[in-house]
This record gives sequence, C-alpha cells and structure tokens, in this order.
Amino acid sequence: MSQALQHDNSDVTAYVVDVARAARTASAAMARATTAQKNRALHAIAAAIEAAHEDIFAANRADLERARAQGLEAALLDRLELTPARHQAMAAGVREVADLADPIGAISDLDYRPSGIQVGRMRVPLGVVGIIYESRPNVTADAAALCLKSGNAAILRGGSEARDSNQAIAACVRAGLQAAGLPGDAVQVLETTDRAAVGILLAQAEYVDVIVPRGGKGLIERVSREARMPVIKHLDGVCHVFLDDDADDDKAYRIALNAKTQRYGTCNTMETLLATPAAAARVFPRLFAAYRAAGVELRGCERTRALDGDVAAAGEDDWYEEYLAPILAVRVVDDLDQALEHIRRYGSQHTDAIVTENYPRARRFLAECDSSSVMVNASTRFADGFEYGLGAEIGISTDKFHARGPVGLEGLTSQKWIVLGDGHVRE
Amino acid sequence: MSQALQHDNSDVTAYVVDVARAARTASAAMARATTAQKNRALHAIAAAIEAAHEDIFAANRADLERARAQGLEAALLDRLELTPARHQAMAAGVREVADLADPIGAISDLDYRPSGIQVGRMRVPLGVVGIIYESRPNVTADAAALCLKSGNAAILRGGSEARDSNQAIAACVRAGLQAAGLPGDAVQVLETTDRAAVGILLAQAEYVDVIVPRGGKGLIERVSREARMPVIKHLDGVCHVFLDDDADDDKAYRIALNAKTQRYGTCNTMETLLATPAAAARVFPRLFAAYRAAGVELRGCERTRALDGDVAAAGEDDWYEEYLAPILAVRVVDDLDQALEHIRRYGSQHTDAIVTENYPRARRFLAECDSSSVMVNASTRFADGFEYGLGAEIGISTDKFHARGPVGLEGLTSQKWIVLGDGHVRE
Repeated sequence: MSQALQHDNSDVTAYVVDVARAARTASAAMARATTAQKNRALHAIAAAIEAAHEDIFAANRADLERARAQGLEAALLDRLELTPARHQAMAAGVREVADLADPIGAISDLDYRPSGIQVGRMRVPLGVVGIIYESRPNVTADAAALCLKSGNAAILRGGSEARDSNQAIAACVRAGLQAAGLPGDAVQVLETTDRAAVGILLAQAEYVDVIVPRGGKGLIERVSREARMPVIKHLDGVCHVFLDDDADDDKAYRIALNAKTQRYGTCNTMETLLATPAAAARVFPRLFAAYRAAGVELRGCERTRALDGDVAAAGEDDWYEEYLAPILAVRVVDDLDQALEHIRRYGSQHTDAIVTENYPRARRFLAECDSSSVMVNASTRFADGFEYGLGAEIGISTDKFHARGPVGLEGLTSQKWIVLGDGHVRE
Repeated sequence: MSQALQHDNSDVTAYVVDVARAARTASAAMARATTAQKNRALHAIAAAIEAAHEDIFAANRADLERARAQGLEAALLDRLELTPARHQAMAAGVREVADLADPIGAISDLDYRPSGIQVGRMRVPLGVVGIIYESRPNVTADAAALCLKSGNAAILRGGSEARDSNQAIAACVRAGLQAAGLPGDAVQVLETTDRAAVGILLAQAEYVDVIVPRGGKGLIERVSREARMPVIKHLDGVCHVFLDDDADDDKAYRIALNAKTQRYGTCNTMETLLATPAAAARVFPRLFAAYRAAGVELRGCERTRALDGDVAAAGEDDWYEEYLAPILAVRVVDDLDQALEHIRRYGSQHTDAIVTENYPRARRFLAECDSSSVMVNASTRFADGFEYGLGAEIGISTDKFHARGPVGLEGLTSQKWIVLGDGHVRE
C-alpha cells in the first residue's frame, strides 16, 4: 500500500469514527426530545426543503450532468433525478411523518404482579441508525424523517452519484433540527464518497446500533457480510399467487393480473403464479390473454403448456427467479399442500397470496405460509408500508429477528421494562 | 494439521450440519403444531423426567464423579448437581411452561385500511433456536420447554461436564415429543463434546435462526464474535440504585439493602449505590451498619468517606465492576442529572432504580435511564422473567435489537403480516 493511500484511509477512518461518535452523543438528546419538538423539526425540515428548491435543483443538475458524463444508464438517471413533483413529494413525505403517532415513551401492558410491583414496557429508540442507500436522493429526507420521529440519531450514506443532491437536502435537515432546538448532528450525511467509508461505518458497532441497507442485492449482501451490528435487510422478493380450486374466477383474474402488471420492478410483484388444475383450466385462458396484451412473457411447467401451447418451457431456475420484469413463471400444482411446498422450496419468504373462497384452506394458508406477508384474496402489491398504515417504511425486512416485512417507525424502536413499586423488595 | 485431526473435524462438521438440517426440517412441523399438541408434549416430558429419576440421578452421579476427578471447583460442582429438589423443580418448570398462553398464531391489530383490505400481524416462531450453556443440567429441560411452546425447534449444546445428565434429560424430551406426535428431532442435544462443535454450530446461519448463549462472559463474547446469525445475549449487570433527595428513608434502606444482599451472584444485584448528599446523610449510617452486619465490603468516593471514615476508597475501576460478590461501590452525586450521567458512563444498561417520592424526577428517571429495566421504588432484584410474569426466561438481553431485558416465550417469536381481502387489487 502506498503512503498516500494509507494516509487517505486513516483520514477516512478518523472522519467516519468522528461522525459515529457525534451521532451517539446526539442520540441521547434525540431520545429525550418531546413529540412537539420532533414535529417542529419535521415541519421546519419540510419548509426548508421547499425554500431551498433552487439549491436542491442546482445540486441535482450537477449530479445528473456528472452521471451523464460518466455514462450512467437511463434507469439510474431516472432514479437520480429530482423533478418538481418529486421535490414536492419529498417535503410532503416529511410532513406525513410529523402526522404519525410518536411511538416513543408509549407504555404497554402495565400490570400488577403478585409481588405488588407494576411491570410494563416502554417503547424506546434503538439509538443510532445507519442507512446505506443508492441513487434516489429522496431517501435522504425520508430516512432522516423516520429516524428523527422515532427518537434515533441517523448516519446516512448515499450513493456517490447523488452526492450534491444529498448534501443540499442534508443542509435542510440540519437547519430544521436546529430550528427546533435539536442537535444538528442527529442526522449526518457522510460527506466523503470514498468507498472505504462504508466498511468503516459497518465496523462501528460501539456507536451504531443497526444498519439498514437500501439498494441492490450486491449492496445488501456486502452489508450483511461486513456489518458488526444488526442489519434490517431485504433480500429477494420471489412472490407467489396461488389460485385454489375454490378461487372465484373473477377475483383470481384481477388479483393475478394486478400482482404481476401493476408494476414490474418492485419486490412485491408476483414472479410465479401457481394454480390447481381446475383453477388453471377456468382462469388461465382469459388471464393469459391479458398478460399477453400487457406484454408479459410466460414460462410454464408441462401442465401449463398442455393448456396453452404458446407458453415457453420454464426451467428449474425460473422458479427461483426474481425477474423484476414483464416475465412470469407459471406452474400447475395438485393442491394447497403442493403449493405450500413450492413456496417453501423456491420462495423468498417475502409475500405470498392465496385466492380462494374456501375457509379452511384460507386459514391453513395464513397459518402455514412462512412469509413476511401472507394474503388471502388480495394482490401481493399491497405489501408496502403505506398500504399497511405504517405511514412510511425505512425498508422491508426478509428476516424474522426483530422485524418482518415493511418496517416503519416501530421497527426503529425497542421496548424496555419499567417497574413501579412503593418500597418493594424481593423476598 | 494431521490427517487424524482433519478426519475428526470433518466428522464433527458433518454431524453438526446433520443436526442443524434435521432441526430445520422439524421446525416446520413445530410451527404447525397445535397448542394442545405442544402442551401434551410438555406434560409427557415432565412425566418422563419424573419416571426416569433413577437414570437421571445415575447419569448425574457419573458427571459429578468425573468432575470431581478433574478437580472442578465447588461452585461448579454445586451447579452441576441434580438434587431431588432440583429434579422435581425441573419437571414442575416444564409443566409451568405448559400452563403459559401459547403465543403462536395470535393475531393483533387487525384493522381495515382505506383500500378496503384488513391488515394485521400474526405471531410466528423464529424457526430454529440454538442454545449454548454451561454446567446446569436443568437448563436442558427449561430451554427445551420454552422453545417447544413457542413453536421452534431447538439445538442444545450443554457443557461437557454435564454430558451424561443432559443426555438422560434429552431422552425424556424426545420421548415426550414423540408421545405427542411431534418430531423427536424438534429438540436435539448435541452428543459430541468436541469443542469444535460450537464453532460449527455458530456458522449454520442457513439452518439456525438465533443463538442464545447462557453462561459466563467468556462464552458470551466468543458466541457474539463468531455467530453468523443473531444472538440474544446478556453481558454485564452493573446495576445501580439511586437515592434521591426526596427518597423515603425507610424505602431507601430496604431497597438498597435488598438489592445488594438478597443474592450476591446474580446479574440484577446492585453493584453501585448512588445518593444525593442529603439522602446519603440520612440513610447511609443505618444502611452501612446493615451492610457490615451482612459482611458487605464498602468502597466509596471521597464524599462517602467523609460521611463514614471506615469505607475504603473506590478507584475508577470500581464504578465499572460487576462484583458478583459482597462488595459494593458507593458514590455521592449532586443530583439526578449526575446520577443519570454516572449510570450512562459506567453502567451496563441492565437494571437501574431510583428511590424517590418526587413525581417529576421519577418520571424523568423512567424516561431517560437507558437500561433494559428501569425501576422506581423497587429492588433491582425484581428484574427476572418469573417476577415479570413471563413464566420463565430463555435469557436476559442487554441488547436493544429484537428484545431487551428478560426474554420469555415472546422473545422466541416474530410477527408476520397478514392481509385479508375479497378480490382487492392495488390501483
């Protein structure tokens, strides 16, 4: 290693450790902040984002020009761009978080015990939340707002391509925090775009309580591997819809069509359609016509192809695939048991739905399908923090530990025990 | 590395991976098991433990003889020994778990959303729980019962010194599971005492969802460092009692005495006593006399020694110390702020108590003290799963992620989202 690089790395290390330590210090003030103070900060941030529209658009144009010069692909450029509508939505999103109930300090299950003490639980912040994300600059405002409302300090590390946009938004966040008398360091956006900074951040278990990676699979796998603290992570979304024998034909048609075609690139989009032979015979003709009209490529098992000779043959790999594209794998299964077996084997425990009018099979699917969201007669596309009433989500967890599925404010908190006595001692 | 050792290690690896894979398979059946079936298994296990008393005592005698021959210290021998009373308590403990409410399948917060879908959460098992513990053989029955009731499969790794006792108890657990029609592999006690087995188990993130280490600090630090899956861990218990200006003298005396002297070796025992100058002047004379009568050594700050010249001088190290012994550090602090500052700096976020009649300071202490259990006018010794009404605890967590403080059945579960619709699609 060259002297120069060593020097650089130790500078980056010192910088990231300083940021992490400052976040830990700020987290104590955030934990004590009142609901009114946090909401005042959120409204001030939203107002600052609106007031700074010229700075934000100028920064975003600089990012876009740099990205175009570097030949970034169109999809990434689109994510990077802050249109006026997206700018407005960003401010509105921060105000929506202000409107959410404050989870901190809520006391639940406060009961008397035989000893005479009262025991309950109080909801408390996790402390310092690290968020590592890619192109979308609006994540900077979203994530800051959620961490702030849940009484945490945050360290945000955005993609280098959104550097200027993120810093412009970060300035608004800092101004809003300070306007409400909260520490400006409660939300810090890393100013270095040095790739080493991520690894250093992931090693700061002393100062950072949880890491939330938001981005592609490569990022998430790297963070899971390197982080020395817990990670709220979302891996694949290989989602299924199962059409049971007793599926209502019309509901089956609408749900299977919506789950695939409402949006292709989202993690809660259906990737594999399962159906019993009877449901397939009844629903596939009309459904496949609609898929074809929408431009969806179908890849099916032998039984599917026996019903419709124009379907391509699916290989074993297709059952594992998260296409994120207008492609759908289709399999005819014998019954609910085989559907559950297929989902267990090939699924990613994200979101799976049954379409049926049959009560015991709906009940069994709900209990036995081991996914973060399990649905009856509804489109998998509903698996989302806004649709679930969380207001906004910091991410979707495909783990079972701590939080599963869409993670809102509550996922950024923990509960401590409180004990109220009047001189009670243990005998 | 010698050929022989390579051979051994690959055998141990294959064995542990087989156990872990079998646990994963069994976990699916456990997740589906009904409450009645799980309770039947628990009662059958308790009965089997009682019926097998001769086998269990013979196995325990063999363990004790081996341990004595190896020169194990008296405290370890005591933990290892299964007296008739402990044998009875073990069976009774399993029956108590049968009496606890089944957390699995409970649906909460099922609300209608504006889209018309109903969204709620269903409590589900974590999957496979690995538990690594030391001498006490009764942990085998306790941990098996808690994992079983919470619908998980378990892999137990006891200390090598309790090998025969653990296997005798494991046979009862397996028999009980099978009597209820549940897979015998749902609770497996590792049969190898090869030290490499722990490291191999900690690498099976594909099959094991969470690890709970129960034992000394060395074990817990090793597990935290090596585990590739989440860990529910308990580190230090540096617990404080703070006597506020407005402490009732009699409550202060009783609580401070009980928190230190009721048991010395437990993690919820007070290790440092804090008091304001006024409280110290009022309460210390009578309290210190009682400590001395109980044989407690006192180490104090300068202000404490000014009140009582017979107190030894505490060094900076004493404030960090978890004595687990009849030694107590004592410090006079200016006020609540300094007490909170002391606890933040030196404490271990385990259990801390304030003694006060003052409402705003009680409220502040509850909100601002960042420990897993925070108490007002009660002895820290209450921080315990039984006292909190959890029935039994799988461990005490000093982390904030997932669970804090005593972890009972609920800590071995997660919640998945359920969505009930009637043909709903996303617009």
